[in-house]
Amino acid sequence: MKLSQLGEFGLIKNARDIFKSLNENIVVEIGDDCAAIKLRKGFLLIATTDALVEGIHFNLDYTKPYQLGIKSININLSDIAAMGGIPLYVLLSIAVPQNFSVKFINEFLMGVKEGAQRYKVSVIGGNVSSSKNEFSINITILGEVEKKYMLLRKGAKAGDKIFVTGYLGNSAAGMKILKSGQWQKKLIERHLMPSPRLTEGRFLAVRGLATSMIDISDGLASDIRRICEESNVGANIFIKNIPISRELKSEIRNPKSEINLALYGGEDYELLFTVKPENVRKLKSLWKNMKTPITMIGEITKRGINLVNTDGKAIPLTKEGYNHFKG
Amino acid sequence: MKLSQLGEFGLIKNARDIFKSLNENIVVEIGDDCAAIKLRKGFLLIATTDALVEGIHFNLDYTKPYQLGIKSININLSDIAAMGGIPLYVLLSIAVPQNFSVKFINEFLMGVKEGAQRYKVSVIGGNVSSSKNEFSINITILGEVEKKYMLLRKGAKAGDKIFVTGYLGNSAAGMKILKSGQWQKKLIERHLMPSPRLTEGRFLAVRGLATSMIDISDGLASDIRRICEESNVGANIFIKNIPISRELKSEIRNPKSEINLALYGGEDYELLFTVKPENVRKLKSLWKNMKTPITMIGEITKRGINLVNTDGKAIPLTKEGYNHFKG
Repeated sequence: MKLSQLGEFGLIKNARDIFKSLNENIVVEIGDDCAAIKLRKGFLLIATTDALVEGIHFNLDYTKPYQLGIKSININLSDIAAMGGIPLYVLLSIAVPQNFSVKFINEFLMGVKEGAQRYKVSVIGGNVSSSKNEFSINITILGEVEKKYMLLRKGAKAGDKIFVTGYLGNSAAGMKILKSGQWQKKLIERHLMPSPRLTEGRFLAVRGLATSMIDISDGLASDIRRICEESNVGANIFIKNIPISRELKSEIRNPKSEINLALYGGEDYELLFTVKPENVRKLKSLWKNMKTPITMIGEITKRGINLVNTDGKAIPLTKEGYNHFKG
Repeated sequence: MKLSQLGEFGLIKNARDIFKSLNENIVVEIGDDCAAIKLRKGFLLIATTDALVEGIHFNLDYTKPYQLGIKSININLSDIAAMGGIPLYVLLSIAVPQNFSVKFINEFLMGVKEGAQRYKVSVIGGNVSSSKNEFSINITILGEVEKKYMLLRKGAKAGDKIFVTGYLGNSAAGMKILKSGQWQKKLIERHLMPSPRLTEGRFLAVRGLATSMIDISDGLASDIRRICEESNVGANIFIKNIPISRELKSEIRNPKSEINLALYGGEDYELLFTVKPENVRKLKSLWKNMKTPITMIGEITKRGINLVNTDGKAIPLTKEGYNHFKG
């Protein structure tokens, strides 16, 4: 069935059935003018919004609607993770060309539901409208965090060590592979359905072990710059420390290309954070039971953002990661 | 300057300067992974999201970016008004084709700012990305409301009188005039920059005078249906009572066309609400000092949604207002 046969009312009814929630803090869910919720006392409300636009962020030739649903939730959860927060509620807004099938949209909604359930967040509202050409998705996630635990981009001090969770470049490599029509499951999955590092972000926040944090959406080169600008500091990144996964190495087989994917590829949705030198040992010891690895990749300096070569030579890290609008 | 020259970082910096706020409840504003805010104890958080897509909701041939900025805020505020709530914060997400000018976007952002300031709401976060063809806008508004005051779509009982604020059909007529290249200022303004009925919605909520409420975005015929479905009731709408403005009458000069615009035109952003018969006199007396008129246009019945002609004959109101996806 085409969306044009189901209509807006029908589509909203579908979404309402799919996202029915039992969370007793939700006073009004999908189907009224606004959603209404009770919040816990003593917490800050945190809110983030992010868009995925067809042709820019995804290509329906090699993205299944279900995967797209999961991804659109996960990239927003990644922002909550980067504050050390707890995600709670989702508002989903989609603009869909009239000729799309109801099956496509329902599969997308099921992906959103799966992504939301995995992290115990509820879809409480949203909006559907038509569009002329492009399918576009906009998600707002609401969450909470204690003020004392919240981790911002500012806070890094000269001397702090720089860490990342997981491996960098996998997502960008996954996209390359998809475009080439070849196949490497782990890389592709990191691109199509990146996991947000919520447990890791929350752990760092509650233990008070990080001085600043951000999630890597535009690429390490771009996102370390954001920490430096907000914290008014510089950074040295040691090339040899940048974590490259086994899968990426065996796929690319060219160290320079691997590093470029890790620096500029983007969409890693790993956490990039800074730690006082005296807390590094404690962090490593406490981290032992976590599944996701962390790697120290550099340190905060007073000014300048540099890449440090294997021979110890520092070169300015000038190029940026993915930047919308720059050709 | 083109957006492609300014880049994403530059655009975010612009937005940050434009939306700088002094509200002390905002702990983190634009420029981090999430916005963070303190909320008042004892209130429910209410949240609504809405999209405006180029070619579907607006046409840049006859919409100035500044007006579009104001409108995108106002249509969301209208949802807050329809809950009887107090709007507080805005998250703004835009997807813009690369070849748009920085001047265009800055004018749009100034419109958003003007719209926000008029109702004392702060823009606390958002997202910018590029798009291939269409400029699209997604706004999320957060607000608060006391549970005891909140007005939902459900709650209407058989016998309740049906009211609307303001006049219906002006916005749709404004759009027609814009498309025809002619000119009638009041109608066009209602279309390009509709005011949300926040004062009116809040008044009805706090005084406890309405049993249900919705804002008219898709047209009276469509939105009365939403109240009826949620409240599990029917309605009779008296054609002769539907408020048509002087401006609309002098522009259209055809009673049937006027009524059609009022029923199906949509984008009125007036409030549609129901009142117990015994409270109608009190409502009218308390309303005396309000600038926006209200009109009783019908009553709630047990079932069936009907239009009642001037001769008292009831005909089923089957056609719907603007429905996305229906051709």
